[in-house]
Amino acid sequence: MRLCSYRESGGDERLAVVVGDRALPAADLAPGGPRTIVELLAGGQRALDALRERASEERFRRDGRPLEELQLLAPVPRPRKVVAIGRNYREHATEEGAEPPTAPLIFAKFPTSVIGPGDSICWDPALTTQVDYEAELGVVIGRRARRLTREQALDAVLGYTCLNDVSARDLQFVDGQWTRSKSLDTFCPMGPVLVTTDELGDAGDLAIGCTVNGEVRQAARTSDLYFGVADIVSHCSQAFTLEPGDVIATGTPAGVGAFRKPPVWLAPGDEVVVEIERIGRLVNRCSLEST
Amino acid sequence: MRLCSYRESGGDERLAVVVGDRALPAADLAPGGPRTIVELLAGGQRALDALRERASEERFRRDGRPLEELQLLAPVPRPRKVVAIGRNYREHATEEGAEPPTAPLIFAKFPTSVIGPGDSICWDPALTTQVDYEAELGVVIGRRARRLTREQALDAVLGYTCLNDVSARDLQFVDGQWTRSKSLDTFCPMGPVLVTTDELGDAGDLAIGCTVNGEVRQAARTSDLYFGVADIVSHCSQAFTLEPGDVIATGTPAGVGAFRKPPVWLAPGDEVVVEIERIGRLVNRCSLEST
Repeated sequence: MRLCSYRESGGDERLAVVVGDRALPAADLAPGGPRTIVELLAGGQRALDALRERASEERFRRDGRPLEELQLLAPVPRPRKVVAIGRNYREHATEEGAEPPTAPLIFAKFPTSVIGPGDSICWDPALTTQVDYEAELGVVIGRRARRLTREQALDAVLGYTCLNDVSARDLQFVDGQWTRSKSLDTFCPMGPVLVTTDELGDAGDLAIGCTVNGEVRQAARTSDLYFGVADIVSHCSQAFTLEPGDVIATGTPAGVGAFRKPPVWLAPGDEVVVEIERIGRLVNRCSLEST
Repeated sequence: MRLCSYRESGGDERLAVVVGDRALPAADLAPGGPRTIVELLAGGQRALDALRERASEERFRRDGRPLEELQLLAPVPRPRKVVAIGRNYREHATEEGAEPPTAPLIFAKFPTSVIGPGDSICWDPALTTQVDYEAELGVVIGRRARRLTREQALDAVLGYTCLNDVSARDLQFVDGQWTRSKSLDTFCPMGPVLVTTDELGDAGDLAIGCTVNGEVRQAARTSDLYFGVADIVSHCSQAFTLEPGDVIATGTPAGVGAFRKPPVWLAPGDEVVVEIERIGRLVNRCSLEST
């Protein structure tokens, strides 16, 4: 199943099921159905099954609203945690000159950085002048999870989305700790949809890429990950509890702006697209923050 | 005013006002008063003023419950962010061999690490064997804040609490990024109370210390901070939005176990106390996680 969060004309956040290019509010599909992703997560597997049973193609063709008319939000607009993984694609670790990792390297993006499809990636040029993209497979956690084995790990995953781990490289290298540089407001675009695990199946060999103004900057496959989704979820859960709605950014492939020769940075007006096979295209434009 | 969160016998989280050693539920003090810290934060300055006007000593002496009878939680049991600052006390930066910082060094603790007074600091000995304390002044944000000047910064602060930035040093040094090592479940004890800024006044010269089994391990004053609360809040707010209930751990003074010669680590059964002048004593015991 494909899910999206969107803003109603009244301003409220809502959850929709997407079939083809049509969306229907999840609350209208099932009696007492979930109005938001938070309500869906609270309802667990039963709430998800109830939606799936009622998502008939015919109904969407007849009653569905065109997806492009919705004001999309990140699939999880207010996650409690965004866990990120560093140096996790073979070629990217090589371009960075880093040793192959022996375990997933965890860092954090503050949840206030999350934005949706079509929202602007904004920064203050007095704070940073080296803004970079990072196309990543985003994992959305579906249930509370602690100390899962690799075999149990995928049961805790609700689904997948496209994520851009936008990074201010000047701040990243000055700080050494990566959190600030990757947590600027608007630096975590996600979307356009969340594709559930039962629909997507194995996320281990998907094409993933990033374009800037139509020019290909990153093009890889998730099979190039050192640590796949099950490894990462299991590893995180040894240290801390994963909660429903938590998001994991699984790392970025080679081709980021910082390691190009010469380096290239995002500029106001640039259109950045993160695309993942069978998930979708996440499009955001860049702009300077108004002072 | 002094505030605490606690668990009712029914299991619900509640907010109380504390006068002397007596507590009264905030919801009972003012008509429609806030039941939880989240409701207080949503009510803003008006909700705070309403409580303050009704917090007469006489009423607390007559009707108040002894504070020690309450099952205390962290003052903010579920913050959305825990922002932490590294190398911020002059003597601690020296013992670490680090250069004096030119700006507050930001990192993250995941909010799932938060526990309350009396809760156990737990770890799995298969994951870490080098667990360390860090006594810190905790700042609780009272209102949404973005790009504040140093002069505006303290207006965004609701108050202060004691915080223990518990750290798994082996994981910290292996990862390089500090998030995982400082985000293990139970690794962010906070409390026992939150003291509002109007009651505490300037937090810039308070005695702060840590004892383990009664032995003094850290003893300093907040005047030894490189960056005070206004500097830190302003600096954070240049990069990201601070939200009501967000917590900032402002850094730890010299005396942590990792830099003792030889290093000393916390052990199961140890009692760790973080004490800050005019705020209180935060007591937690250590134990191994049951498998």
